[in-house]
Amino acid sequence: MASSPTEPFDVGVLGYRFIGAAHANALARLPMFFEDAPAVNRHTLVGRDEEALADAADRLGFDNIATDWADAVDEVDAFYNLGPNHVHEEPSVAALESDTPVLCEKPLAPTLEAAERMRDAAATSDALAACAFNYRFVPAIQYANRLIDAGELGEIRHVRGRYLQDWLVDPEAPWEWRLSADLAGAGALGDLGAHTIDLARFLVGDRVGEIDRLSGHLRTFVDERPVEGTDDTREVTVDDAYTAQVEYDSGAVGNFEASRYATGHKNDHTIEIHGSDGSLKFSLERLNELEVLTGDSRGYETVLVTDADDPYGEHWWPPGHVLGWEHTFVHENYEFLCSVRDGDPFRPSFGDAYEVQRVLDAIQRSDERGEWVRLD
Amino acid sequence: MASSPTEPFDVGVLGYRFIGAAHANALARLPMFFEDAPAVNRHTLVGRDEEALADAADRLGFDNIATDWADAVDEVDAFYNLGPNHVHEEPSVAALESDTPVLCEKPLAPTLEAAERMRDAAATSDALAACAFNYRFVPAIQYANRLIDAGELGEIRHVRGRYLQDWLVDPEAPWEWRLSADLAGAGALGDLGAHTIDLARFLVGDRVGEIDRLSGHLRTFVDERPVEGTDDTREVTVDDAYTAQVEYDSGAVGNFEASRYATGHKNDHTIEIHGSDGSLKFSLERLNELEVLTGDSRGYETVLVTDADDPYGEHWWPPGHVLGWEHTFVHENYEFLCSVRDGDPFRPSFGDAYEVQRVLDAIQRSDERGEWVRLD
Amino acid sequence: MASSPTEPFDVGVLGYRFIGAAHANALARLPMFFEDAPAVNRHTLVGRDEEALADAADRLGFDNIATDWADAVDEVDAFYNLGPNHVHEEPSVAALESDTPVLCEKPLAPTLEAAERMRDAAATSDALAACAFNYRFVPAIQYANRLIDAGELGEIRHVRGRYLQDWLVDPEAPWEWRLSADLAGAGALGDLGAHTIDLARFLVGDRVGEIDRLSGHLRTFVDERPVEGTDDTREVTVDDAYTAQVEYDSGAVGNFEASRYATGHKNDHTIEIHGSDGSLKFSLERLNELEVLTGDSRGYETVLVTDADDPYGEHWWPPGHVLGWEHTFVHENYEFLCSVRDGDPFRPSFGDAYEVQRVLDAIQRSDERGEWVRLD
Amino acid sequence: MASSPTEPFDVGVLGYRFIGAAHANALARLPMFFEDAPAVNRHTLVGRDEEALADAADRLGFDNIATDWADAVDEVDAFYNLGPNHVHEEPSVAALESDTPVLCEKPLAPTLEAAERMRDAAATSDALAACAFNYRFVPAIQYANRLIDAGELGEIRHVRGRYLQDWLVDPEAPWEWRLSADLAGAGALGDLGAHTIDLARFLVGDRVGEIDRLSGHLRTFVDERPVEGTDDTREVTVDDAYTAQVEYDSGAVGNFEASRYATGHKNDHTIEIHGSDGSLKFSLERLNELEVLTGDSRGYETVLVTDADDPYGEHWWPPGHVLGWEHTFVHENYEFLCSVRDGDPFRPSFGDAYEVQRVLDAIQRSDERGEWVRLD
Repeated sequence: MASSPTEPFDVGVLGYRFIGAAHANALARLPMFFEDAPAVNRHTLVGRDEEALADAADRLGFDNIATDWADAVDEVDAFYNLGPNHVHEEPSVAALESDTPVLCEKPLAPTLEAAERMRDAAATSDALAACAFNYRFVPAIQYANRLIDAGELGEIRHVRGRYLQDWLVDPEAPWEWRLSADLAGAGALGDLGAHTIDLARFLVGDRVGEIDRLSGHLRTFVDERPVEGTDDTREVTVDDAYTAQVEYDSGAVGNFEASRYATGHKNDHTIEIHGSDGSLKFSLERLNELEVLTGDSRGYETVLVTDADDPYGEHWWPPGHVLGWEHTFVHENYEFLCSVRDGDPFRPSFGDAYEVQRVLDAIQRSDERGEWVRLD
Repeated sequence: MASSPTEPFDVGVLGYRFIGAAHANALARLPMFFEDAPAVNRHTLVGRDEEALADAADRLGFDNIATDWADAVDEVDAFYNLGPNHVHEEPSVAALESDTPVLCEKPLAPTLEAAERMRDAAATSDALAACAFNYRFVPAIQYANRLIDAGELGEIRHVRGRYLQDWLVDPEAPWEWRLSADLAGAGALGDLGAHTIDLARFLVGDRVGEIDRLSGHLRTFVDERPVEGTDDTREVTVDDAYTAQVEYDSGAVGNFEASRYATGHKNDHTIEIHGSDGSLKFSLERLNELEVLTGDSRGYETVLVTDADDPYGEHWWPPGHVLGWEHTFVHENYEFLCSVRDGDPFRPSFGDAYEVQRVLDAIQRSDERGEWVRLD
Repeated sequence: MASSPTEPFDVGVLGYRFIGAAHANALARLPMFFEDAPAVNRHTLVGRDEEALADAADRLGFDNIATDWADAVDEVDAFYNLGPNHVHEEPSVAALESDTPVLCEKPLAPTLEAAERMRDAAATSDALAACAFNYRFVPAIQYANRLIDAGELGEIRHVRGRYLQDWLVDPEAPWEWRLSADLAGAGALGDLGAHTIDLARFLVGDRVGEIDRLSGHLRTFVDERPVEGTDDTREVTVDDAYTAQVEYDSGAVGNFEASRYATGHKNDHTIEIHGSDGSLKFSLERLNELEVLTGDSRGYETVLVTDADDPYGEHWWPPGHVLGWEHTFVHENYEFLCSVRDGDPFRPSFGDAYEVQRVLDAIQRSDERGEWVRLD
Repeated sequence: MASSPTEPFDVGVLGYRFIGAAHANALARLPMFFEDAPAVNRHTLVGRDEEALADAADRLGFDNIATDWADAVDEVDAFYNLGPNHVHEEPSVAALESDTPVLCEKPLAPTLEAAERMRDAAATSDALAACAFNYRFVPAIQYANRLIDAGELGEIRHVRGRYLQDWLVDPEAPWEWRLSADLAGAGALGDLGAHTIDLARFLVGDRVGEIDRLSGHLRTFVDERPVEGTDDTREVTVDDAYTAQVEYDSGAVGNFEASRYATGHKNDHTIEIHGSDGSLKFSLERLNELEVLTGDSRGYETVLVTDADDPYGEHWWPPGHVLGWEHTFVHENYEFLCSVRDGDPFRPSFGDAYEVQRVLDAIQRSDERGEWVRLD
């Protein structure tokens, strides 16, 4: 940590494409909408391609660039690790060993072993270690969480999560790192399923406990894909789709699924919960809405979660003036930076992300063995 | 068979409650809306409680009653077996042995062994043996079938089916035969899941083949329930909810689920299919609609399947004048009676229903063993 | 009236096409589902084309046919006038003069003068005179009515009704009687708008009073249409679409619209109401549902109006087993026949239908004058 | 104009509350997402309350503050007039007389006369004069515009627009400037209806022409409201709700409505269009979606307008990662600033906004007279 509490935080960010822009945008918007957030300098942007990096730093508002993350992690007050999954461990652990707070993208790591090492590094560091499961910070999800915590759904019996995309439907869509077991760890399971499993855990974990046992299934529909700019193809070594049946400690059951072959679905992440006293439904493509059935309701009520007293509502616009996907990053960055400043805990922590990783790992093991596996 | 082709068919019906009324109503409506259907006498209504039976026969328009099905099966031209699951085998087999055509409610039997005997009886009988999976006869489902048969969805990759009800959410809801393994065979799995598995097979079976292997899971949330009119409780010996992950011969995957504990859902049967060229969604509570995404579509199109050239459309009302749940029975009875008259095959046959039963059985076996099971 | 209360009612019906079948079907279904309804003989079917009539009588279950309605009106216990609008007056008045109860299709008449004469005939007859605005008998509409009567919406401020069809979008769609001012009185206004205006009056009339003043607008998009089977065209002398702005006695405002040129809309009748304490939305193409916002609701709740204690619910199927368009006729026939038998009033009466006609007439007058008109 | 084309634009902004923040946010986001936009200095923030203004300038990133707009209009390269309606004319005209480009909030003015003067000032200025009807810049609306321009809907016959809010349902909601005829000009009509009328004109104006004649209606439900912080009440001198029936030059018809008393509706702006070949539906609370029915479609297709080749799509996130309400301001600011830089025309211009004002004025005149009025 380089600066005193009264000075702006220097933030270093590894990764400058899609997710890098999402976080840079979030940092840039805090002063206007979250006045009590710490002031932030976008200090250093880290990447490998110097030219692209310089362009991105200019566009995203970073003062410096670095092609070696090692140059950044102990120069900054917070380190954002937004690289591909196989790059999560080393820089994050190094930062934590320097007591630099880390916000690392999801899933925590390509393997359970790597995730375990990251969790352990977090446990022995004085710095905060956060995992960027941004969908926890959708106002409608926070609102759902309030309802469940207040007992409005009663005893939880069913959790159902599904994340559907279609960017691999075309067999000519090119190979990329997300399709490599070495680089990504898993496919739809790690990229999409990790979100679902974390979200379910966030929403109902306090009520149903952890997953006790599960049956997982993986499927790869297209085995190899063209390498862009060449005549070669390269093997797809991850799943294109997964399903899982789970049992929670409490006896509740869950049913999870993701696919990159769901023709017509772009970013369709849904979660549904049934309890003895009520039910909830959420869909990411309509993220301002929560479908709520509680108490004397006869059907789902479509709640537009944009009122001033809704989560983060007072920071934005009048009721009905809807937010977008990127606002989840603003909220996440706000919470993370405040926690760093105030020495407060932040969730999802590396510990939380490790619990998700255990589930991903168990799904893979179950698929290999063709049988249910326990998580203890 | 008692009558010649030129005379009305005498139909005998075992069962006079909810489903009995659905079929009686269907028979009564054929002359007005399906002029080419065989004429039918509602000949004999079979049940155990003579008084209730007489009342029902009067209301439902039957000429005779019988408390022993054996008195009916060879007196009639078609025998409808609408009794509880454990009563499916004996009367149906007896009817088939008398070469009386049978329309039997679903699921075919409480056990795979009973279903096998029924399938064998059908195979050696000269009479038609039909299983009453009525949701095949929703116009929107028939329309979906046309689209899939025409290849509009391309190669099928995902099938997702879900049947949600909530009539057991209240732990004080009384015990009934549907909650007994002996009488019903299975719970939500047999009552609801059988519909879903049959519907999936109807829609995509020609393209993906049969289910090759699966992992099933059953859950009972409430172990015993009050016996109505007494202070006693009785054990619940069936599942309250099930899930299944399946692999088809073609490599397609399926994900199925049902529950009687889905608070707020009354009769919510949905099926969703993703292929390489398109996707479909159907929901029973909006049964006049089909969500269709094919060809150059960017999103789902909400098709109201009520035009004159839609399945069964010319028999009913002008476009947009919607049908209800009961119309599935009219269509089913129409197809069944015409097949009987014309000596044509009818599907779903006992053979089809047996294939569904193999899946139900495999789900139960998989749940017991905690591992994937093959269906061959 | 020909029969005693203990014998079946003889019903005579003028009209045997679409709406004739809807009523005949309703009559045929009463015994099975509404046991306390009067028994009915489908006695005489009246029409002009003897051959088509004989076929229809056979299919719809009538014992006799008549090509002159005068032969039927005093032979039967109830007379259903389902003919084109210009045939409503004479037979209905004749029946009422014979003290034969009349159920007449909507709108009551092609002109306000004819409607007035019919209302007067009803006032001086001992027999019941009912107008067949069947959408009052949708369970969800009856349920809406209950909510409004109970004050759940508070003071009513806005009523919005819209009826969209598209069967005239094609300029080659043939001419028919509905396109003639002489035969129909009005176009979309009389055929569709009459339903909306009656429904609004049914739902909120007790709270907002009658319409005090209004501004109406009519539009004809296609001036002439081909006469089927000829090379001729014939003039369209009615509106293809209308809109109306209305003020109620209470100060509430309404906004109404219909069109036969709403491409893609088949039978899309919607009504929306906003009160100081709540709001409601209904759509005919999803007629089992009512969108309800009351009390502490933050959004609309989708209520599936199929429970046993919902209007007419106990007569049909278990919750979630949806009804269709035709069930509105069953309920309407049930209420009408019971009222006839019991000597009870029935609504909508000819008096109610006359009030609707006053609105239709005022819309036409307002359109002609280009100014607001008062209804007193 | 103070700066050369190669230097950042100095922007001055009058107004610092809700809409001020929306524009300031838009300016702040351009560099990251619209690289080809002109660089901008948030130069001066103008308001009356010096303390609040200083706070806002700090939060919104302005270098200077001014309590007199006259100090700003010729110091900056573009002047944003975001004040209450009665403050639109004087500063805008002064800026235009200094050849400072103006972006003025909607509606253009409280009266037609003021709007006319503003239009005339724009006509004689060398600077661009833009009106901030931001809903033109929703990607789904731009996409709709493309479809209509390409003729996908054929001949336009119906336009339907509705803007529903509920912030005045509570009779104790306090008085504010929006409720004063002097300060605002009109109520729901000017605040909400102006948006709808502009949007309809944007979408179908090229095809249907201007509005030829109309019938308008205004209603005030609550005549006086409490003045915050006092025991006094103050009169409401504007409409709480309006409706309008319109005829376009082409013969197409329109039906418009807005209310601040639509219980449960927060910011529900919908527009629907029916043409001879297709139909469209848009709802602001689900602004990423467009409902499209064209060509061989049987029903509306729900298009998620977030693809890279959708309007503004390449500037933001991957498909399915939805945008929010505020993005309309980013797009609007981008287009406005590029037009200023490049000397290109910008629409909606003051001329466009004047056309909207003519409609608002005609609606008010029609309401007063109780008759249709022509707009020529």
